[in-house]
Amino acid sequence: VEYEGTGFHGWQIQPELRTVQGELEEAAARMTGSRPVVRGASRTDAGVHALGQVAGFLTESEIAAAQFAPGLTALSGPDLAVLDAVEAPPDWSARHAARGKTYRYRVWNRHAPSPLMRRTTWHVRAPLDLAAMRTAAADLIGRHDFAAFRAASCDAPTTMRDVTDVEVVPISEGLIEIRFRATAFLQHMVRIMTGTLVEVGKGRTDPREVALIRESKDRRLAGPTAPARGLCLVAVHY
Amino acid sequence: VEYEGTGFHGWQIQPELRTVQGELEEAAARMTGSRPVVRGASRTDAGVHALGQVAGFLTESEIAAAQFAPGLTALSGPDLAVLDAVEAPPDWSARHAARGKTYRYRVWNRHAPSPLMRRTTWHVRAPLDLAAMRTAAADLIGRHDFAAFRAASCDAPTTMRDVTDVEVVPISEGLIEIRFRATAFLQHMVRIMTGTLVEVGKGRTDPREVALIRESKDRRLAGPTAPARGLCLVAVHY
Repeated sequence: VEYEGTGFHGWQIQPELRTVQGELEEAAARMTGSRPVVRGASRTDAGVHALGQVAGFLTESEIAAAQFAPGLTALSGPDLAVLDAVEAPPDWSARHAARGKTYRYRVWNRHAPSPLMRRTTWHVRAPLDLAAMRTAAADLIGRHDFAAFRAASCDAPTTMRDVTDVEVVPISEGLIEIRFRATAFLQHMVRIMTGTLVEVGKGRTDPREVALIRESKDRRLAGPTAPARGLCLVAVHY
Repeated sequence: VEYEGTGFHGWQIQPELRTVQGELEEAAARMTGSRPVVRGASRTDAGVHALGQVAGFLTESEIAAAQFAPGLTALSGPDLAVLDAVEAPPDWSARHAARGKTYRYRVWNRHAPSPLMRRTTWHVRAPLDLAAMRTAAADLIGRHDFAAFRAASCDAPTTMRDVTDVEVVPISEGLIEIRFRATAFLQHMVRIMTGTLVEVGKGRTDPREVALIRESKDRRLAGPTAPARGLCLVAVHY
């Protein structure tokens, strides 16, 4: 599922608010005559985008699986599209079957704002030192306790996570992308890691401090939570 | 000047409608106390975007030229930004001084629509043959009469134009960009050339026909006018 997060109050269904889950359930109800619960691999925050969200639902409908992609797309707003649909075993869970996820965070790093990029990037005016950010990023890779990089509201029972990749990539003039891959992430983990790497890029945090921040397990030592609009769920890996 | 064209009724000022020229004149009036006429290098159509529009205006204000970039940006909507401002001779014209312009046209060429690309691409479902499009594009390069590729409402006194480059470039999966460079373009010329190249890509027009269409000078033989939202003025060359 691809969506632009700007017009949604996140993935998870909420009364009276437009959410991705709610929009998909409503569309599925109109196709099948019965409203299912649609469960996603990632409960993306309000404003976060997705190029490759994965979700599943149970239905007794006899509509062929492939028909659900164009059908659900047509019954949703233009900011939501179901790219593909296949049949899965009844007990398959998009969330539990996932072996990993890839997110990208995009920073617009030029003095002037970018009207064309404004919905999908965080505008950071100060020139960023990408080499320093890469040095720091290396210390976020591996199996570690990431308690310093999770939201206060995160209720995950363990804070150990396996981060397999953090790459800092210049895409085009002014546009910097940070790609994160892990088996799973804590709440706000990508946004807090991004906020911390941007502090390093600005020269406010020494790149060698990032390992110490991680080891402290203290959220107060990490950088700010980067805004949702720069974040995009690129892929869920199975 | 960079802008997302979605929320504007084009460049040119019109009563009661939001236009790029109107927004810039209003912002300049608020900065200087006197409303100037802002003249752009290209009068982009409604819905067309710009990464590198260039415009000028006369003012007796003593505000330093460089201050106009952040000032006009702050006084405009988030879909418009002035990236840079410099002082020019009083008789300088952004339009008449231009030696050439580069536009890009972006096509989203995948079966499913793209929510994240929907404002800046034309969604063409049928797979496009890029090799055929490149063969046809070669016949649009050079000094020729482009009467077959202009809007009925175009009032240019001559239809001879020098097209220096037409490139068909795959950007990423699903995204195709056609880049056009010429000393000047006729009204809707880029959009009609794009519509014609897409007909070639779909196999509906033989690539060798494009030179004949051009030589016919008959608008009815060229392809449809591609939608405004895929078009972006990338740069004006001086």
